[in-house]
Amino acid sequence: MITIRKPDDFHVHARNSYLLTRVWPHTAKVFGRALVMPNTDPLILNSEDAKRYYHQIVTVDDSCEPLMTLYLTNNTTPNMIGEAFRAGVIAGKVYPVGVTTGSDKGVRNFNAMKPVFEAMEELGMVICFHGELPGVNVIEAEKAFLDILHGIATEHPQTKIVLEHVTTADAVDFVIDHHNVAATITAHHLVMTVDDWAGRPHNFCKPVAKFERDRARLLEAAGGGHKFFLGSDSAPHPTSHKEAPVCAAGCYTAPVLLPLLTQIFMDEFGTEVALEQFASVRGAEWYGLPLNEGEVTLVEDPWEVPNCYDGIVPFMAGETINWKVES
Amino acid sequence: MITIRKPDDFHVHARNSYLLTRVWPHTAKVFGRALVMPNTDPLILNSEDAKRYYHQIVTVDDSCEPLMTLYLTNNTTPNMIGEAFRAGVIAGKVYPVGVTTGSDKGVRNFNAMKPVFEAMEELGMVICFHGELPGVNVIEAEKAFLDILHGIATEHPQTKIVLEHVTTADAVDFVIDHHNVAATITAHHLVMTVDDWAGRPHNFCKPVAKFERDRARLLEAAGGGHKFFLGSDSAPHPTSHKEAPVCAAGCYTAPVLLPLLTQIFMDEFGTEVALEQFASVRGAEWYGLPLNEGEVTLVEDPWEVPNCYDGIVPFMAGETINWKVES
Repeated sequence: MITIRKPDDFHVHARNSYLLTRVWPHTAKVFGRALVMPNTDPLILNSEDAKRYYHQIVTVDDSCEPLMTLYLTNNTTPNMIGEAFRAGVIAGKVYPVGVTTGSDKGVRNFNAMKPVFEAMEELGMVICFHGELPGVNVIEAEKAFLDILHGIATEHPQTKIVLEHVTTADAVDFVIDHHNVAATITAHHLVMTVDDWAGRPHNFCKPVAKFERDRARLLEAAGGGHKFFLGSDSAPHPTSHKEAPVCAAGCYTAPVLLPLLTQIFMDEFGTEVALEQFASVRGAEWYGLPLNEGEVTLVEDPWEVPNCYDGIVPFMAGETINWKVES
Repeated sequence: MITIRKPDDFHVHARNSYLLTRVWPHTAKVFGRALVMPNTDPLILNSEDAKRYYHQIVTVDDSCEPLMTLYLTNNTTPNMIGEAFRAGVIAGKVYPVGVTTGSDKGVRNFNAMKPVFEAMEELGMVICFHGELPGVNVIEAEKAFLDILHGIATEHPQTKIVLEHVTTADAVDFVIDHHNVAATITAHHLVMTVDDWAGRPHNFCKPVAKFERDRARLLEAAGGGHKFFLGSDSAPHPTSHKEAPVCAAGCYTAPVLLPLLTQIFMDEFGTEVALEQFASVRGAEWYGLPLNEGEVTLVEDPWEVPNCYDGIVPFMAGETINWKVES
């Protein structure tokens, strides 16, 4: 049995309408706060969208605080940033055009974002990046994006940047080398490589999992003292959108997230200290938020992950996880 | 309109029973001969299996001559090789254990194959290799296998070896550098990269398509004067085995093969000369077979590939191909 401070998930796809009611309770049950992504349908483009979405989420379950984000586009203005900030939005998310689900309206021209980034810098809002360069293949797109991010990070040295769901040793090195860049790491990228998603639609996500050398480096980073913290990127899709000619990208980890992380960290580091830093401390510190008050206890008690939750196949469906959250 | 000598396909999965009757006619309609792979269920392990399988195939359609192969294992003996040779088998196929469909009974110990390879060398039988090293990730497995193949090729300098369905620039260079190694190239590896099979089960095959730099090198090799020739690796699977949690590996190119190749070669080289060398000449020469007598004519006449042939989704389903075989 282990007990850690109540954790936060700094990257969740909470979806909306039907899916929201099905998936949000899995996150709400365990996490104190969750940064919800704005690439919903419709997109969260301004303060009004964010307020409406916040209300939808807490109506389903208010036991977890949704932390709101704005979907940044080349039409976003500094004024919209100010309004969003006053409405409680804490971060803006940059999706380069075409790199993942809901990125069609994303950023085409990074230079043109300068006034928006400056407004965010001034207000202390975090800029989150989906770090893949459009037009580059799925294996090399993250590394190729680092050049662009280097330019932005050095041009806005006071801005807090988060490189989301890093998947490569190159990205880990980049984050360590840039004082104003942190990174989220997902649970699934701590256990998967390219072999796990090749021909396995439920393990297919963007950015794709890379090589064993990358996975090992991510795990080292997650357990180390640097600016890496949990962002699950839990991304539910109906089975009909996964087992299909064109598979939706995303792993639905919310139902297994903390048990899986506990297994990974206990197996690798043999103590819950690193897990707590990764899941409950470093993210809040980067965002300038107080640490959560409560605690969560996990017990070592193997269980088999169900094949389906409400029509959605979870990550590790049918496999055994050795830890569970004590209810 | 172009006319070429009747082509051969030196790598086809003809399947058996129900599937055989559905897929073999697509190959038989166009090709003079086809080297049929032995990783059927049950496997083609000896001369009796090969004779029975040959009979099954020509019973379905004898307008194309099936060229028979033996599935080599660590239980294959030189005596079995001799019997197979006398039964008309022209090649043996090596599947390293675990690398693709039907490879569970494949070769674990390459050194132990020496007596078998020597028997084949003596009889002039071709050794075909699925060139991926077990335990290496899908992106790097082919390159990693080249070391093993180098040892075999240099130890048996008189043996004709075919490295099947090459996917990397490294493999192309390897073939050019080894006088007794040739290679087949599929149609789908001439048009796909990793981005085409990531999250697209019908494009997922083994070895997986690699990078644009590899694709370009394969196309250059296919159109060049070296030892590269057509082996389609057409590998049909029912849709239920493709759009599934674990996707069967293989692209079903047989229904579109020669039209697609014609499009690729005419677009790239502007003449049918290179296509004829690739599809109708170099393979037969490597195997020491006479060239086919007849001809095939293709006309430029765009058509949309059906979404399904008898419950099997073909390669390029729903897309347009600009050439068709004149009936």
